[in-house]
Amino acid sequence: MLVTKHQNTIDNAVKANHERTFFSQYPEHPKAYGEDAHAKGHQRYQQLLGKPFKQLLQTGETGWAGEEVSPYTQEVLGTTYPVFAVNDLIAKATTAGHKWAQTSAAERAAVLTETLDNIQSYFFDIANATMHTTGQSFMMSFQASGPHANDRALEAIAAGYHELQRYPGQLLWEKPMGKSSIRLQKTYTAVPKGIAVVIGCSTFPVWNTLPGVYADLITGNPVIIKPHPKAILPIAIVVAAIQQVLQDNGYDPNLCQLAADSSENLITKTLCEHPDVRLIDYTGGSAFGNYVESLTGKTVFTEKAGVNSVILDSVKDLNAVIQNLAFSVCLYSGQMCTAPQNFFIPESGISTPEGQVGFNEVVQQFKDAIVALVSNPKMGAGTLGAVQNEATLTRAKEAHQLGGKLILQGSPVINEEFSNARVYAPTVLEVSSVDTNIYEKELFGPILLIIKTRDTDHSIQLARQMALKHGAITCGAYTTDAAVKEKITTEMNSVFTPVSFNLTGFIWVNQHAAFSDFHVTGGNPAGNASFTNQEFIVKRFVWVGNRELVE
Amino acid sequence: MLVTKHQNTIDNAVKANHERTFFSQYPEHPKAYGEDAHAKGHQRYQQLLGKPFKQLLQTGETGWAGEEVSPYTQEVLGTTYPVFAVNDLIAKATTAGHKWAQTSAAERAAVLTETLDNIQSYFFDIANATMHTTGQSFMMSFQASGPHANDRALEAIAAGYHELQRYPGQLLWEKPMGKSSIRLQKTYTAVPKGIAVVIGCSTFPVWNTLPGVYADLITGNPVIIKPHPKAILPIAIVVAAIQQVLQDNGYDPNLCQLAADSSENLITKTLCEHPDVRLIDYTGGSAFGNYVESLTGKTVFTEKAGVNSVILDSVKDLNAVIQNLAFSVCLYSGQMCTAPQNFFIPESGISTPEGQVGFNEVVQQFKDAIVALVSNPKMGAGTLGAVQNEATLTRAKEAHQLGGKLILQGSPVINEEFSNARVYAPTVLEVSSVDTNIYEKELFGPILLIIKTRDTDHSIQLARQMALKHGAITCGAYTTDAAVKEKITTEMNSVFTPVSFNLTGFIWVNQHAAFSDFHVTGGNPAGNASFTNQEFIVKRFVWVGNRELVE
Repeated sequence: MLVTKHQNTIDNAVKANHERTFFSQYPEHPKAYGEDAHAKGHQRYQQLLGKPFKQLLQTGETGWAGEEVSPYTQEVLGTTYPVFAVNDLIAKATTAGHKWAQTSAAERAAVLTETLDNIQSYFFDIANATMHTTGQSFMMSFQASGPHANDRALEAIAAGYHELQRYPGQLLWEKPMGKSSIRLQKTYTAVPKGIAVVIGCSTFPVWNTLPGVYADLITGNPVIIKPHPKAILPIAIVVAAIQQVLQDNGYDPNLCQLAADSSENLITKTLCEHPDVRLIDYTGGSAFGNYVESLTGKTVFTEKAGVNSVILDSVKDLNAVIQNLAFSVCLYSGQMCTAPQNFFIPESGISTPEGQVGFNEVVQQFKDAIVALVSNPKMGAGTLGAVQNEATLTRAKEAHQLGGKLILQGSPVINEEFSNARVYAPTVLEVSSVDTNIYEKELFGPILLIIKTRDTDHSIQLARQMALKHGAITCGAYTTDAAVKEKITTEMNSVFTPVSFNLTGFIWVNQHAAFSDFHVTGGNPAGNASFTNQEFIVKRFVWVGNRELVE
Repeated sequence: MLVTKHQNTIDNAVKANHERTFFSQYPEHPKAYGEDAHAKGHQRYQQLLGKPFKQLLQTGETGWAGEEVSPYTQEVLGTTYPVFAVNDLIAKATTAGHKWAQTSAAERAAVLTETLDNIQSYFFDIANATMHTTGQSFMMSFQASGPHANDRALEAIAAGYHELQRYPGQLLWEKPMGKSSIRLQKTYTAVPKGIAVVIGCSTFPVWNTLPGVYADLITGNPVIIKPHPKAILPIAIVVAAIQQVLQDNGYDPNLCQLAADSSENLITKTLCEHPDVRLIDYTGGSAFGNYVESLTGKTVFTEKAGVNSVILDSVKDLNAVIQNLAFSVCLYSGQMCTAPQNFFIPESGISTPEGQVGFNEVVQQFKDAIVALVSNPKMGAGTLGAVQNEATLTRAKEAHQLGGKLILQGSPVINEEFSNARVYAPTVLEVSSVDTNIYEKELFGPILLIIKTRDTDHSIQLARQMALKHGAITCGAYTTDAAVKEKITTEMNSVFTPVSFNLTGFIWVNQHAAFSDFHVTGGNPAGNASFTNQEFIVKRFVWVGNRELVE
């Protein structure tokens, strides 16, 4: 029985969701999965290239499509995916949903946890597929699309399992009426909202997709996954693993369908606007995100663009701070939604135990640290990964034209393993606080801006304004002053932006841990949803209470 | 200490919210409040008439307005209320919100429960004010605006108190890293969304207003109450009672402001569209409700119009059923959002233990029961109450022109105590199932439609379609067949409509009990919100998690 098999895991995950202490079900170290897992996964990945992907348990395709290009080799993967008519996807989701809606929360949670265990056996296949579609390093590909995505999925399962059991299934309600009483038999049913669509992005095709998928499924909704046409393979492997478990356990594999499309025949809007689609999760640019949010009659969860700030005030160890920040901005070339972009530094510089360090000196140290990191033959290319697409590369190459003072011109970096890899070191610009036209927008990719401010209060004011107007997912802050810390907390939290203080060493502002950190707050323009608060779960179903008189 | 004083009440309410068994903090029997409470309340109510209402602790009014007319006397009450500039209301709410946002959930819950206790001491004043603005009978006025509204408010306080304490305020997060670890001090803060507006309606000016008000306040948001210009006095007394407690306990009374306006100078849209207003609760017609829902950048909770159905299939005691339904439709002249309007009866009639009773016979019995009730000198006028406004009366008077077969023509009913009262018995029409133009809309007031269907499956299909397209808050159903019950449950629940089965005696489909029944599901066009599920609470604040490295 799957329920028995997974109950302990689910109970632990529910507990972790509430206590928010460190918890991880799927080890993040590749070595935990055995000596030959890496090699075998790579081998299986290579066998998927240049041919139709036939592992899905979906039928009735109208054709095949595939246009992925590896940012490492800049060659096409050649894998193609079945394409389905939107009405066919909807019809199959409808059919699959009937039995699933009647399935208990405990059974759903167990079946879904079993799918995660099955996904785990493909972690290395998925890692290679992620690397060669997103441009992430192997390690980030492994962790983000493997254990971290699975942990986020388990988090959603646990949150749903908890919410669905909040009320008794049935009870006898008895209202005293003088010497007698009125008695009603009452039932409470969590009715799923309907067909769900999850729209993936090209940089985190699994990590950003699974929370919505598992939140939909645990609450009883069939789900259709619409991946980015340039990053299908990682999630295709995941969907195949899910479908296999569903079928093996007597459920319709069409509960979780892959709806691949092509850049020339995008089906996203048709899917979203279908009247039977009631739930939409979206990760990507703000323009399309705002369109999805504007659809009426849908419950929509978005993660869009934001402008993340770092506020530098005072530090205990400037070098440690600079090293930490250099790594943060280089990691996957600024293509993480959590990556910092705008660095606010007072014109008077930064206070340290050794005295004030001038603005220009801080900038110089920051530049030097970035140059040292990207030039390091053991670290540089691996930290940067590759740039996912040409548009991002072009933006980075042309960033010096934005204005301000060019501190560091980005340039190609050699990846020893993949000589053709699209790797580009960050461009750093120093701008004035009045140059809002430059820094008041997301410059996705390896571009960072240092903004000279009057003082820390000014830095806080500008960072707050950025988050309020343009959204923010993270804010890093460095201060040794309790009052300043308090002020940064109050001001940034007032625009629903979390703050990470004084991170140095092996922890970066880019990282959000499942079961503990909310990813995106949902309160500012960076997105209306959060992994995984209650809203992310409870908006996917409706409590309906029935009553019957007991005579 | 208020926290100590009320902790037991709050704990009981939290428990009741979860267990959903019978619970009530404020007795619904007027006699529970002492022998002379009724007389004193009536006296105090009369002292409020014909003069400015000066009990509010708000200052800076730009003028005074009041246009209420008693449906019982058809005379103006003459009470006037201070009118404030929208920007002044917003500025005062902003100021009041700062300290409140920093106040703990426990302290907020205690202060708010204290306000309910203070409101309780005005229950009879509020009852008279409700009667003479809404047209409800004295008993309904007392219960709905008094104990039932207070219970719903306590329900919201308890739900908020629970949600706000879901996560630890702070904790040490420790991630193992080989032989060492990374340690972060984490905090979780529920940040209030911002200024809230609650828009009241003319028929339930307190009951429909308090859940939003208390949900806003418990989650830390200052609230501005915009009552219907024809039903201000009941909620004005409530707001004054709330403000007094806030001030007495060192909080800014402007945390809860009354924003009265007049039919000629409505401020609702200006309020709603103000950029600082982030939360809106609305009860009223669908057209304005759809406008409120369409506003971007706001979190909106609505209760709009619906079309409630009764499905008649088979009964154990036809007379008991007919008596129950006759009371349901007469109660407050169909002006409850929970009142049934469309009665679906198969052309073959209804199955009873004594055999099949033909369609015409059922209709005749229903008509006879309504006539008997409205003609009963002890029951009729009291059950009907008065019609709140002329538009509803006109609709009822002209209902026979809608089409179909006139079963019972509505007519004026004499109220012995108030000879000028606007009392009108229901009009009953029999229509064919193809007359969708007649029954596919809400006919607010004393109008009911009997729809002849092919069979019960057809009845279910039509009732489901009504709820899906036009919304429904309740559905009554009568069947002795388990399979039919199952089908009605599945079909009506699939359009997020709760079903009450086989109600007879002193329990009616119109009634929703606090702490047990969700009022409106939020899943169909009758409204997007529900008293009081988690969504009603958690959408009013944002979880923000801050982190700091511990070295």
